[in-house]
Amino acid sequence: MSATLESLIEALRCLPGVGPKSAQRMAYHLLQHDRAGAARLGFALDSAISRIQHCERCNTYTETPICERCQSDRRDSSVLCVVESPVDLNMVEQTQAFNGLYFVLMGRISPLDGLGPRNLRLDQLVARASDGIVKEVILATNFTNEGEATAHFVCELLKRQGLKVSRIARGVPVGGELEFVDSGTLAQALRERRRLES
Amino acid sequence: MSATLESLIEALRCLPGVGPKSAQRMAYHLLQHDRAGAARLGFALDSAISRIQHCERCNTYTETPICERCQSDRRDSSVLCVVESPVDLNMVEQTQAFNGLYFVLMGRISPLDGLGPRNLRLDQLVARASDGIVKEVILATNFTNEGEATAHFVCELLKRQGLKVSRIARGVPVGGELEFVDSGTLAQALRERRRLES
Repeated sequence: MSATLESLIEALRCLPGVGPKSAQRMAYHLLQHDRAGAARLGFALDSAISRIQHCERCNTYTETPICERCQSDRRDSSVLCVVESPVDLNMVEQTQAFNGLYFVLMGRISPLDGLGPRNLRLDQLVARASDGIVKEVILATNFTNEGEATAHFVCELLKRQGLKVSRIARGVPVGGELEFVDSGTLAQALRERRRLES
Repeated sequence: MSATLESLIEALRCLPGVGPKSAQRMAYHLLQHDRAGAARLGFALDSAISRIQHCERCNTYTETPICERCQSDRRDSSVLCVVESPVDLNMVEQTQAFNGLYFVLMGRISPLDGLGPRNLRLDQLVARASDGIVKEVILATNFTNEGEATAHFVCELLKRQGLKVSRIARGVPVGGELEFVDSGTLAQALRERRRLES
């Protein structure tokens, strides 16, 4: 096998869920049937790496220093929804049941993976939520153990700042992840959010 | 979602078996956890497209006009093994039960997909097999209906040139594909090849 082909197969394994056999099939498929697609993918990867950065206000992926959503004047800037990842943000957006702004933690507290509160950008969250405009912070982390621990920690932190903190309703199945829930369930969970009492 | 991110997700769908949800997960995974891997993949795709071509003698993927195997003087050039794809070639090589040369059809006869004999490089195969050195052609196409039809057609074509043609033994399960068979079974199938009588 040529060295370039071996490099391609090896490189494809950086994709999640792709083992040696899948990588080989993908490489041969691209070479034999879709060189144009491979060229587009190569270009898309290069563009993504060079252009996509984190929004300075909400942390999500964007091509501008501050994302369109954070710049919009049609969003309710008094409500801030905290999610673990940009995928979760998209899921909440798709429910069309929320018109506030977001903060993406880009992770979760997970002691088993060696991820503590310090691995999240919590200082940035506190600063963001303490801007005087935000009145309520909705915690929409996953209902996994890690997501619950994260919600608990973030809640304590924000309440110390005198902020009203709520958690989306447990309409999301226990142990489930936002990414795989249907929009209707998630919309209800947003509507039924409950205020966290200390 | 940013346009660049959408382009990346769309571009990832050129990979076989990758739908919209997988593509999204892959894109976010790369951006969040493996930008170096994404850069390597982009580079590997570009290199593969620009460097990898078909060997002028056997059709397999190579970076030189004629591949290393076809140039080697340690291979038995009197036996030619015909396979459907480079993946199948690799599978035969892994058995270490064959020391001849190859011809890769880069396809198969499949009327349902609109692929007839004209879609294969059969003129090139006839010319290759008629070089005066090749004494036997082993047909190692898959044992699917398409592979069998291809073997039958190629056999008739080569026998008209006065060549000895054989088929790997049906040790490979009927309906199976070479890519998914263990090396032992495939080695036996090579050893038990039978001469095709007209």
